[in-house]
Amino acid sequence: MLSYNKGINENKNWILCEEEFNIKYQGKCESIMALGNGYLGIRSSLEEAYMGQTRNLFVAGTFNRADKQEAAELPNAADVCEMEIHLNDELFDMTTGVILEYKRYLNLREAQLIREVLWESPKKQKYNLIFKRFVSLADYHTIAFQVAVTPLTADAVIKVKTGIDGKVTNSGSQHFYEGDKRVYDREYMQLIQTTTETEIAFSINCCIQSDIEYGELKAKEFGVDRRKVYGVYELSAQKDKNTKFEKIVSVFTSLDKEYKGDYSLDKIKADSLNYLKSNSLKGYNQLLDESRERWLNYWEQVNIQLDSTNEEDLLAIRFAQYHLLIMTPVHDSRFSIGAKGLTGEGYKGHVFWDTEMFILPYFQYHLPAIARQLLIYRYNNIEGARNKAHKFGYEGAMYPWESALTGEEETPEWAALNIMTGKPTRVWSGVKEHHITADIAYAVWQYYLSTNDAEFMHKYGYEIILECAWFWCSRMKWNHKLDRYEINDIIGPDEYTEHVNNNAYTNYMAHYAVTAALCILEELQKNHIALFNHLDKSLHLSNRYPIYKKAQQKLYLPKANIKGIIPQDDTFLEKDVISITSYRQNNLKQSILLDYSREQIIDLQVLKQADVVMLFSTLKKIFNTDIIEANWKYYESKTIHDSSLSKAVHSITAIYHNNTKEAYHCFRDAIKIDMGENPISSDKGIHAAAMGGIWMAAVFGFGGIYNNEGMLEINPALPEEWSQLKFNICWKGIKLQIEITKETVCIFSDSSKEINIKLNGFVYSFKNQLSKPSKGVKQ
Amino acid sequence: MLSYNKGINENKNWILCEEEFNIKYQGKCESIMALGNGYLGIRSSLEEAYMGQTRNLFVAGTFNRADKQEAAELPNAADVCEMEIHLNDELFDMTTGVILEYKRYLNLREAQLIREVLWESPKKQKYNLIFKRFVSLADYHTIAFQVAVTPLTADAVIKVKTGIDGKVTNSGSQHFYEGDKRVYDREYMQLIQTTTETEIAFSINCCIQSDIEYGELKAKEFGVDRRKVYGVYELSAQKDKNTKFEKIVSVFTSLDKEYKGDYSLDKIKADSLNYLKSNSLKGYNQLLDESRERWLNYWEQVNIQLDSTNEEDLLAIRFAQYHLLIMTPVHDSRFSIGAKGLTGEGYKGHVFWDTEMFILPYFQYHLPAIARQLLIYRYNNIEGARNKAHKFGYEGAMYPWESALTGEEETPEWAALNIMTGKPTRVWSGVKEHHITADIAYAVWQYYLSTNDAEFMHKYGYEIILECAWFWCSRMKWNHKLDRYEINDIIGPDEYTEHVNNNAYTNYMAHYAVTAALCILEELQKNHIALFNHLDKSLHLSNRYPIYKKAQQKLYLPKANIKGIIPQDDTFLEKDVISITSYRQNNLKQSILLDYSREQIIDLQVLKQADVVMLFSTLKKIFNTDIIEANWKYYESKTIHDSSLSKAVHSITAIYHNNTKEAYHCFRDAIKIDMGENPISSDKGIHAAAMGGIWMAAVFGFGGIYNNEGMLEINPALPEEWSQLKFNICWKGIKLQIEITKETVCIFSDSSKEINIKLNGFVYSFKNQLSKPSKGVKQ
Repeated sequence: MLSYNKGINENKNWILCEEEFNIKYQGKCESIMALGNGYLGIRSSLEEAYMGQTRNLFVAGTFNRADKQEAAELPNAADVCEMEIHLNDELFDMTTGVILEYKRYLNLREAQLIREVLWESPKKQKYNLIFKRFVSLADYHTIAFQVAVTPLTADAVIKVKTGIDGKVTNSGSQHFYEGDKRVYDREYMQLIQTTTETEIAFSINCCIQSDIEYGELKAKEFGVDRRKVYGVYELSAQKDKNTKFEKIVSVFTSLDKEYKGDYSLDKIKADSLNYLKSNSLKGYNQLLDESRERWLNYWEQVNIQLDSTNEEDLLAIRFAQYHLLIMTPVHDSRFSIGAKGLTGEGYKGHVFWDTEMFILPYFQYHLPAIARQLLIYRYNNIEGARNKAHKFGYEGAMYPWESALTGEEETPEWAALNIMTGKPTRVWSGVKEHHITADIAYAVWQYYLSTNDAEFMHKYGYEIILECAWFWCSRMKWNHKLDRYEINDIIGPDEYTEHVNNNAYTNYMAHYAVTAALCILEELQKNHIALFNHLDKSLHLSNRYPIYKKAQQKLYLPKANIKGIIPQDDTFLEKDVISITSYRQNNLKQSILLDYSREQIIDLQVLKQADVVMLFSTLKKIFNTDIIEANWKYYESKTIHDSSLSKAVHSITAIYHNNTKEAYHCFRDAIKIDMGENPISSDKGIHAAAMGGIWMAAVFGFGGIYNNEGMLEINPALPEEWSQLKFNICWKGIKLQIEITKETVCIFSDSSKEINIKLNGFVYSFKNQLSKPSKGVKQ
Repeated sequence: MLSYNKGINENKNWILCEEEFNIKYQGKCESIMALGNGYLGIRSSLEEAYMGQTRNLFVAGTFNRADKQEAAELPNAADVCEMEIHLNDELFDMTTGVILEYKRYLNLREAQLIREVLWESPKKQKYNLIFKRFVSLADYHTIAFQVAVTPLTADAVIKVKTGIDGKVTNSGSQHFYEGDKRVYDREYMQLIQTTTETEIAFSINCCIQSDIEYGELKAKEFGVDRRKVYGVYELSAQKDKNTKFEKIVSVFTSLDKEYKGDYSLDKIKADSLNYLKSNSLKGYNQLLDESRERWLNYWEQVNIQLDSTNEEDLLAIRFAQYHLLIMTPVHDSRFSIGAKGLTGEGYKGHVFWDTEMFILPYFQYHLPAIARQLLIYRYNNIEGARNKAHKFGYEGAMYPWESALTGEEETPEWAALNIMTGKPTRVWSGVKEHHITADIAYAVWQYYLSTNDAEFMHKYGYEIILECAWFWCSRMKWNHKLDRYEINDIIGPDEYTEHVNNNAYTNYMAHYAVTAALCILEELQKNHIALFNHLDKSLHLSNRYPIYKKAQQKLYLPKANIKGIIPQDDTFLEKDVISITSYRQNNLKQSILLDYSREQIIDLQVLKQADVVMLFSTLKKIFNTDIIEANWKYYESKTIHDSSLSKAVHSITAIYHNNTKEAYHCFRDAIKIDMGENPISSDKGIHAAAMGGIWMAAVFGFGGIYNNEGMLEINPALPEEWSQLKFNICWKGIKLQIEITKETVCIFSDSSKEINIKLNGFVYSFKNQLSKPSKGVKQ
C-alpha cells in the first residue's frame, strides 16, 4: 500500500507514496499526507468524494465550544478540496471504471502532494489525471490546487463543480453559523462563517482558473446551497493534450494577529478577497515556487543526513520534521501545538505536555526562535494556570492538563456516560495529572541552558519557573513520620495508574523545578536585582526562598530498592504481574481493555508508558548505567506502549544503558506509529509527540546529544544499520554541524568563539572544528 | 430505471420498482420510496452507505431553530438505517464487485420496502441478499428492518455493525446536543438527544436479533463515538441457506402527546426502552402483520379502482394516497403537514396553503376525521394568526404563510444575500402573500358543507372563518373614485408577480370568506344564539355585520374583459409576452432564471402557476364554460408550471371546459412531478401538494365531484384512456360508492336516507342506488 523508497535523485528519501488506491487507507493517508503551515492545516482528502472521508480544514487557535456541554475544540472549517469532475458526462470516481495506474505521493522536500491516475471510465474512455496541491509556507493564507487532464481516447469536455462547502462538522458538532456566500466579479467565491460561541469570523475565498495557455476560464454558473457556494466550469480538452485548471484559495479569520482582536467584517472580507486576487494572478506554479523556496530554506536549516541500510529511516526523520513544521503556529505565540497537530479532530486541538517534552526540543536545537515562541504561549496563559492553582487550593501556576486558547483547563471533568452502567466516568487527568507543571518549568530551563536567551528569561522564563516551583511547594505534603515532603494522590504520565503517592517521574521533575527556581533566585539577587525587586512585588520572592529551599532538601525522591528497581510509585511494585505479550505485538496487537477493565488495570503492574524510563530521558545524569539498565528491563517488559510517546523514550534510554540494538528496534517501532501498516491508527490525525520522538531518538539517542545543565554532552552510538549520521544543532547561539560515523565524530562550529563540550566523556575546548574517534574505536 | 408495472396478482398496480442500482437516482428513490406513519418519516437511504446519500429521520412537529439566524425546521434525528455488512470480511457495497440481479420495490399496499440483490463480491463470492423494512402504522414509534443473506459460493461469516448515528445534520446545521448513549442488558442501544432551542428530548432505541430459528444473537462488542452508539454482531451463514437478522427500532420524543408537555427524561427513556423490548419479542414478521392490517384497512376505506390503458395511472393515484397518509400526523392536532411531508428537509417541514387547498380535500372526502383534525391545527394556532394581523396593523386572524409548531409566521423576512450583489433579498411571501387566510376559511367552509360537522363548526370552524373574514375587512382598502374595495400590494399564488393590485384569485377567495362569515352570522343569530353571544364577547360580532356586508357587496371582483380574459391583476395584461417554450419542456426544461432575473420576470406575462385557472378550480360555479376555456387557454400558454401545484389544477379545470384530452395530458404531467424521470427533482423530498393534486385530478377532474355550496354535483368525464373509474366518497356522513364507465354512472349509498345530488346537470333524489347514463351517451 504505502511505500517509502520511491524517491530518486534529488527526491531520494523525500517521498511518501501510496501505490494503490485502497479505501481502507483513506483515513491514514488523509492524516499522514496532510498539508499545512502552522496557520492552517488540511487533511489530504481526495478531490472527488468517497465514503468514509474526513474533510478537515483547521486554523490554529480558533477554538469554539459547539455547545456548553462540549469542550472547546478546533472547529472544522468549510472544505475547499472537493471537486466534482465530469469527463464527457462521466463522473470521475475511482470506485467505478478501472484504475490502470495509480500513485499518490507527498514530496516532503517541497511539501507538495501529487496524485497520478490513469483511469478507464465505465464507458471505456481513458484519461490521465494529475492532481497537485500545496499549502503555502510563503503565504500563510494560501492553499492551491492544480488538476491536469489528458483524454487518451477522444476529445473530452471537462466539467468541474467546486467551491466552498461549509456543511462539514466535527463528527456532527457544528461550530459555525450558516454564514454568507458571495461571488465577486463572476470569478471569486467567498464564504463568511462565524463560530457560534467565540464569534471568530472565517473568510474563505476561492477562484478557479485555467492555466494561462488555455485562456480565460469563466464559470458556466454559480450556485448556492445551505452553507455552500460553488461554481460550475467547463473546459474543452483535446485528445492526448494536457489541459489544466487551478483552484486558488485564501483563508482569513478575525483571530489573525493582524486584526489584534479589533476588526470589521468588511475589512476581513476585503483583505481576504484582495489577497486571493493578487495570488491568483501569480497562478499555481509561481505560488508553489515561493512556497518551495521557504521549504528548501527550512530543510537547509534542519538538515539531517543519514546512511542506513533501511532507507526509510531517513525518510521517517524527514517525515517527522515535515509534520513538526506544519503543526506549529510559528506565526503567533497565542497558540501552541495540538496533540494531532492540524491533521484531525482527535484531542480537539488541545495542547498537552507533548509540546514541551516531545516537540519543543526539536525547535530548541534547530530553530530556537520557534521554541522561544512556544514557551511564550505558556507565559501568555500563566493567568489561567494561576486560576487553576487557586481553584484547587494551591499557589503559583498550575498549568492545565489540556490547554486551548485561554489557558484555562479544558479537560472535561466527566467523560461520556459508561454505556453499560449509565454512570458518568470521572476524568482525572485534568484534576490529578500534575507533572505538566514540572515539565513546563523543565522545558523553560532546558531552553535557557541551551540558548543562553537571557532576554527571554527576563521577560518570561524566570516567572514561569518561579511560579511552577511555587505550585509544587504548595502541592507537596509534609510527612512528619518520615521527615519529608511527599506528593500524594497523583497521576503520572503512565495513565494506567491513578491516585498514587510519590510517582517517581513527578517527584523528580518537581524537584528539578524547585531546584531551578532556587538557582534563579540566587542569580536574580546576585546579578539582576532590579528584576528581582520587580518580581518580588507580585510574587513575594523574599518570603519564598526558605520554602523553596526546604522543598528542595526534603522532597522525597524514590531511590532504587535492593534489586535496583526505582518504584514507579509507593505501591506499584506490590501489584500483580501478568503476561502482556498479546497486547504488545505491533500488528496483531489486541486491546488490553477487552480483557481487563480500567479499574483492574490500575491494580496490575501494567504500564501504558514507563514513568521511570521517561525519567531517565529527562534526568539521565542522576542515574548510573546499571540502574538505568535494570529499570529499563524491568519496566519495559511490563509496558504495552499504548501511548505514542513511549517507544521513542525507550529508544533513547536503551542507548543510556548501551543497548543500541534495542534502541534501534524501539526507533523502528516509533516510526510505525504513523508510517506503519495499521490502516486506522492515524484516522483522527497524526501523533504530534511521536514526530518529536522520532527526531529525539535520532539526535538525543543515536546522536547522543545531552544538555547537562548547560554543558553540551555528546555520546553518539550508531546502530549497526547506520553508518553515518550528520545533523546541525544550535547551541548557545552557535551552529554546530555534527558528523558521526562508526569511526569518528567531527564537530564543526560556525563561530570563531571557543566552545566547551563533553564528547564521549572527555571535555574539549575548541574553535571551528573538533574531530575524535567514535567511542569503541581504539584511539 | 424506475418501473411501475411490476406488480402482479394481488400486487398489480401496487409496486413502485427500481430495477437497476444507479447512484444518480439515489436521492429520488430515498424520497419517493420513503416510509412513514405521520408520526415519523424516514427516507429510504440504503443500509450500506453511498456518497450523496441523505439519511433523514423526522418526527412530526419537533421543530427547532439551529441558530437564531435560521428559521425553525424539522430537525434530522439520528439515523437508524445504516448497516455496515461484511461477508467473509468483504464489505458489502454495490459499487464494488458485480451486481448480477437487483430490484428494490416499495409495495404500497403493505407499505414495505424490499430490496433483492444478487451480488458477486470482488473476491468472486456470490451472495443473495434481501433487505426489508417498514415503519409501523400500528405502532407509531416503531421502525423495523430485516436482512436475509444466502451465501451461494461458500459458508460465510456475516459481520454487521449498526446502531444509532446522531452525526447527521440538516445540510450542516446541527439541531441536537451531543446526547447520552446507553446499552442496556448488553442488547438494547439507546441514544438520547435534545434539541438545542426547543429542548425536545428524542429517545431512539434499537436492538439487533436473529430470526428465532437461528437462536440468540449477541453483540460481539458495543462501541461509542461522538453522537453514536453501535454494536457489532456476527452470524454464521451456511452455503445456500438463508440466514436472517432483524433490527427493531423505537422512537419517542418529549413532545409526544402522552407526555402533555410534562415529562421526565427517565420516563421517556424507560417508556421507549420497554416499548422496544416488547416489540422485539414480536419480531419483524409479527410487527409487519400488525402494520399491514392497518394498511389494508386504510386501502379499503380509500379504495380507488381504475381501468386505464396506462397501467401506471392507477399506481400513481395509489402512490399519492400512500404518501398522503404517511405525511399526515393523524395522531396529533398540534401538527400539520409539511410541504415535503416527512421525506426531506425541503421547506424545513413548514406548513403552507398546500395542506388546506391540495391535501385536505383528500381526507375530507375519504377520512373526514383526519380533515377535521388538520383544520383544528389552524384553530390551535389562531393566536399566532391574530398576532400576525396585529403586527401588520390588521385585525382578525392573518394566517402565516409558513407555519410550524407555534402558528407564528416562520417565513424569513430576508433570504440569503444575493451572491452576485451581496444585497439581501427580501422575501415577500410572509409579508404579502395573504391568500392563505382566504384559503383556510374556504377549506373550513368546504369541510362543513360536505360533512355537516356542526360540532366542529361550533368549537372551531365558525371562529376561524369569522376571524379570517375580519382580517380581509381590515385588509381591503376603499377606492373612493371607483366606489369599491380593493386589495392592493399583494402576491397571489403565482409568485412570479409581486406587489400587484387586485389579484383575481385573492379577491374572489377573500370575497368567499366574507360571504361565508355573513352566512355564519345569520345562522348563529337565527339558530345558535348562545354561541353567538359567546363569540360576540370576544369578537364583537354585533358591530361586524354591516362591515362584512359592505365588504361583500363592494369588494372588487375582476371580470372578464372584452376578449373574455379575467385579468390576473390590475396590470398583468399590459405586460410583455415572451415565448416560453424552452422553459416548459418536461425533460429538457431549462430554468427561466438562467435567462431572466426575478425582477425581469415580474414584468412579463410569465406565470409560475396560473391564478385565474386556480380560481376556476375553487369557485367553478361563478364562471361559465366559455370564460373558463378562454382563460385557461390564455393563461396556460403563459405558464411554466414551475410550481408542483400547477399541473393538477390545469387538469381539473381543463375538464371544466370539456377538454378531457388536455386534462389527461396535465394529469400525466402531474404524475411525473415525483414519479417522472428527472433524477433530482425529488431530492429534497416528495411534493406533498402534488400528491393531493393527483387525487384531485382523478376525483374532482375525471370523477367530476364538485361541492356546490352543499349540493354534491357529479359531472364525470373519463379520458379516452380510461374505461372505468370507481371510488368512494364520504358525503355528509354517508359513504357513496361511485362507479363511472363511458356508458353509465352508478352511485351506491350505504345509507337508507334519501340523498340529493346533481348528476350531469340533473338533480336526483335517491336512496341506496342511482344509475344513469354517462354524459355524452344518448339516453
